[in-house]
Amino acid sequence: MTTRDGWIDEEYRGIVRTGFRRTKSLFKAKSAFQSVEVVQTAGHGKLLLIDGMTMVSERDEFVYHEMIAHVPLFLHPRPRRVLVIGGGDGGTVREVLRHKSVESCTLVEIDGLVVEASRRFIPSTAGKLSDRRVRVRIEDGVKFARETSERFDVVIIDSTEPFGPAKALFGPAFYKDVKRILTDDGIVVSQAGSPFYEIGTVKNLDRLLRPIFPVVDAYLFTNLTYPGGLWAFAFASKGLRPVKDLRSTRISSAKLPLKWYNSDVHVGAFALPEFLRKALSRRSPAAV
Amino acid sequence: MTTRDGWIDEEYRGIVRTGFRRTKSLFKAKSAFQSVEVVQTAGHGKLLLIDGMTMVSERDEFVYHEMIAHVPLFLHPRPRRVLVIGGGDGGTVREVLRHKSVESCTLVEIDGLVVEASRRFIPSTAGKLSDRRVRVRIEDGVKFARETSERFDVVIIDSTEPFGPAKALFGPAFYKDVKRILTDDGIVVSQAGSPFYEIGTVKNLDRLLRPIFPVVDAYLFTNLTYPGGLWAFAFASKGLRPVKDLRSTRISSAKLPLKWYNSDVHVGAFALPEFLRKALSRRSPAAV
Repeated sequence: MTTRDGWIDEEYRGIVRTGFRRTKSLFKAKSAFQSVEVVQTAGHGKLLLIDGMTMVSERDEFVYHEMIAHVPLFLHPRPRRVLVIGGGDGGTVREVLRHKSVESCTLVEIDGLVVEASRRFIPSTAGKLSDRRVRVRIEDGVKFARETSERFDVVIIDSTEPFGPAKALFGPAFYKDVKRILTDDGIVVSQAGSPFYEIGTVKNLDRLLRPIFPVVDAYLFTNLTYPGGLWAFAFASKGLRPVKDLRSTRISSAKLPLKWYNSDVHVGAFALPEFLRKALSRRSPAAV
Repeated sequence: MTTRDGWIDEEYRGIVRTGFRRTKSLFKAKSAFQSVEVVQTAGHGKLLLIDGMTMVSERDEFVYHEMIAHVPLFLHPRPRRVLVIGGGDGGTVREVLRHKSVESCTLVEIDGLVVEASRRFIPSTAGKLSDRRVRVRIEDGVKFARETSERFDVVIIDSTEPFGPAKALFGPAFYKDVKRILTDDGIVVSQAGSPFYEIGTVKNLDRLLRPIFPVVDAYLFTNLTYPGGLWAFAFASKGLRPVKDLRSTRISSAKLPLKWYNSDVHVGAFALPEFLRKALSRRSPAAV
């Protein structure tokens, strides 16, 4: 990441960069894990950057947060207890709480500085972290999953890329623990990287999940700030199938004030383009 | 567009920019209509730029070209005569020609310089322009549609943005002519702008088409080089419905060597996110 003449640029492997016009620097500090920065931009609201990579832009964070939360929460017949690992900005928790069935949402974020910066500067995502149903724990999500005796209906891995503090979140030991702490209808979804630029991340996570969970799939979303625009989530469950078991009446009757997610979008997100279908060794689409 | 320290940046309204690492300038010239440029990049193959806006990158042009061509051509039961307006790079024509039923494909490009530069420097898209089924006409597509006595099964508007030479391609008079030159099962699809950054373009085209065609819809694709990543195509037909009338066995039996399009992707592309569904005044998704 470089800043120069009012632009804040995120460079990807020296081949592409995305820049946002910055009008003001609001916060910048280093934790034990990473650098955390909040800037005001001319066209994308506030941006949260971790180690120079954009994590949240106020303009389009709704896409990521609606898709990481509502796909598992509308698929699960009655999600009551939800665990979010990572996601210190609070956007995922905000979407989880829209579900009336949810009695508790535990956020386990390794870096207290992310939560602090988000609470102070990005209330649009962090505002719901003080909801009475939310418990915020500043600790290692890998350790939490290994040691907790609690059980969850839905686990959401809202992590950064598979290096630095998030590395162990992309390992098999962690997902075996996730399986253990999931209830019988349990679902886990995870940020899984860019099919265009980091197809290895998508493939590795898929390969890692398949021996552990009976149902494994991937779904896509698009956004303005992550390199390449198109990104993937991994999906795994103890039995619920992501498209066939969706009851779309649950979505229509919930009447949530959403900007991106609906039942068509849910189904369409699991339509994998040919190159990704082949990379993940999935069968050809069935007849319509 | 600015070039500096090896980056070629496309800036959008002073709020965002996307830059590609340029390793070599291959071609730059001005026609009566616009500037045309071809550069070699470090990570995206060759780029074709018109007036500083990226039109084609070799790395991901397959997404745009497969989606603009195969959605109408697999939906139409037997497309024989196809008209492409714009698209001087030849990528759309290349995809059209994969359909064995196609007997002729007419490309009407207003700017001969785009065709010339593409033929010389980007054979991966322009290579099929010399196929015996292709006729290349360097003339105004609006005038061609107004004056031709030919009829087409599918018309593809593969244009630049709605200003400069492409402006009249976003007007009602043009689409009335398109309707006239379409056969009874005829379909037209058009490049329709960015739902995130230029939702007005998507809306205006939709509003313009609805009084003219009995079936009007929009579908989405994602790519690496257009601002925002997510872009739209407009769809209009004389009767064929874009999802319900799809016969996916036509796709599976054609066995085309595609990298993006398949029947799931076809259906999923018409799943409009909530904000776009509302902007286009579409009904809520039906039950799955």
